[in-house]
Amino acid sequence: MSERIGFIGLGIMGAGMAGNLLTDGFDVTVWNRTAARTEALVEAGAARADSPADLGGAVDVVVLCVSDTPDVVDVTEQLEPGLSEGMLVIDCSTISPDVTRELHARMAEWGVGWVDSPVSGGSEGAIAGTLAAIVGGVDHDVARARPVLGAFCHTITHVGGPGAGQACKLVNQILVVTTMLGVSEALVFAAGQGLDLDATIDAVSGGAAGSWMLEHRGPQVVDGYWEPGFSIDLQQKDLRLVLEAADRAEVPVMATGLVFQLYRSLQHEGRGGEGNHALVKAIEKLAGIEARRER
Amino acid sequence: MSERIGFIGLGIMGAGMAGNLLTDGFDVTVWNRTAARTEALVEAGAARADSPADLGGAVDVVVLCVSDTPDVVDVTEQLEPGLSEGMLVIDCSTISPDVTRELHARMAEWGVGWVDSPVSGGSEGAIAGTLAAIVGGVDHDVARARPVLGAFCHTITHVGGPGAGQACKLVNQILVVTTMLGVSEALVFAAGQGLDLDATIDAVSGGAAGSWMLEHRGPQVVDGYWEPGFSIDLQQKDLRLVLEAADRAEVPVMATGLVFQLYRSLQHEGRGGEGNHALVKAIEKLAGIEARRER
Repeated sequence: MSERIGFIGLGIMGAGMAGNLLTDGFDVTVWNRTAARTEALVEAGAARADSPADLGGAVDVVVLCVSDTPDVVDVTEQLEPGLSEGMLVIDCSTISPDVTRELHARMAEWGVGWVDSPVSGGSEGAIAGTLAAIVGGVDHDVARARPVLGAFCHTITHVGGPGAGQACKLVNQILVVTTMLGVSEALVFAAGQGLDLDATIDAVSGGAAGSWMLEHRGPQVVDGYWEPGFSIDLQQKDLRLVLEAADRAEVPVMATGLVFQLYRSLQHEGRGGEGNHALVKAIEKLAGIEARRER
Repeated sequence: MSERIGFIGLGIMGAGMAGNLLTDGFDVTVWNRTAARTEALVEAGAARADSPADLGGAVDVVVLCVSDTPDVVDVTEQLEPGLSEGMLVIDCSTISPDVTRELHARMAEWGVGWVDSPVSGGSEGAIAGTLAAIVGGVDHDVARARPVLGAFCHTITHVGGPGAGQACKLVNQILVVTTMLGVSEALVFAAGQGLDLDATIDAVSGGAAGSWMLEHRGPQVVDGYWEPGFSIDLQQKDLRLVLEAADRAEVPVMATGLVFQLYRSLQHEGRGGEGNHALVKAIEKLAGIEARRER
């Protein structure tokens, strides 16, 4: 018999994910802070709960997909009266690894499992069911979560115990922004040398200098295309998690800290909605030169 | 009729490159500051010149492969009495783009062409004839250089006018070291979070966080393997060129500057001969934690 799923958080990501659970034949109950967001899913066959506690009482597995650490803490507190032994919570939000470990320990006292499973792949991936999940949790909880995650994920990578999924997602974010810092500095240097930027990217992409960011975002920089794959505002929320987790673990993150401050300067210019590759604009401002293709 | 080639600089790279010119049937004359280095090539069929000027008088094309900017300037001054209109110099050293543009202009006054063609691929690539050249120069000079470079290069990428090859090589070096800075910071953060480092690298390598350095050097870091693909001492020589070129062009290079200083601290510990991925050791020292696999 298939598990009954509760889904909390029907934002740009959650709505697509919950829709895919329905498509896969799961019995789904939804709750959202803004109730209007539940309508389309109820039309598609979902039940609607009046509160997180109500939802908890009606299902076996609860999936969370909210914005940030305080939202997960808040909704979990509301959910608690409805939880009972043997249930499982799968948190698909990207939040603090430390708070995740605390929530896991708290739930374990009541016999409720907690799997952290931050996802990436954007709203298109949520709708298409092709997200990538990086998962932390104890083995039997993760095994139980897999078929649920499988409804909206293409790849599910179990990296370690409770909190490891969140921590690994933050490692991913460190790599994304620091690589973009290097790409930005390299492109601005190249512009300062009068190089043809397309030829330069082509010449260096294939070897030890190569990266996903250089190959995919480098040409967008040169082209002046700033639509977000992942916006600066969302990136900042994740970098704040990195800085906080690094501080708690007493690990310096010099390059990531620098990127956070540079993004801050771009947010002040109203560029928070631009893609994270617009980091180059902060470097360009410092250099007084743009790394754009001549037109 | 094939061009007569002069080759100056029979170090760890040049010896292999000159050998491949002989193998390809070129008429090769060699000169080296340390004369003993010419012996193996003379046995293999090369002629030996008594001075750079002698060499210049006996050939059509001169290939330079020496250590640094002052060496190229010095050997070019010695070469000048032997140069005549219609000759071509191909500089395979990695040196200053600005000085390269000056040398090109000076040679052009006498009707001598100058192509900058820094190579990468290591001594193994020099011997195997599989180096990669990033080339700057005017079209007809580069066309003339191609069959010569083809004797020891697998790929020849013409990126722009005089100095563009050197400038693009420096862009490559910026990308290599800044990407490794991010990889180092990410791995140390991951260690601080108690993550399994192999699982972490696997989980994040395939997407937007991915890079050649993460894929190839990340596992070496975790494994504690420090043999150089490219040593810290050689990297510092190239970063010094980056910092000098950036200063002349009035372009800030914050991340590269930071890496240069971190490598300096490793050189003080006697680690200049380790691979450039040993950058992680500077980050580890700051963090008080190592990003190594448990054994």
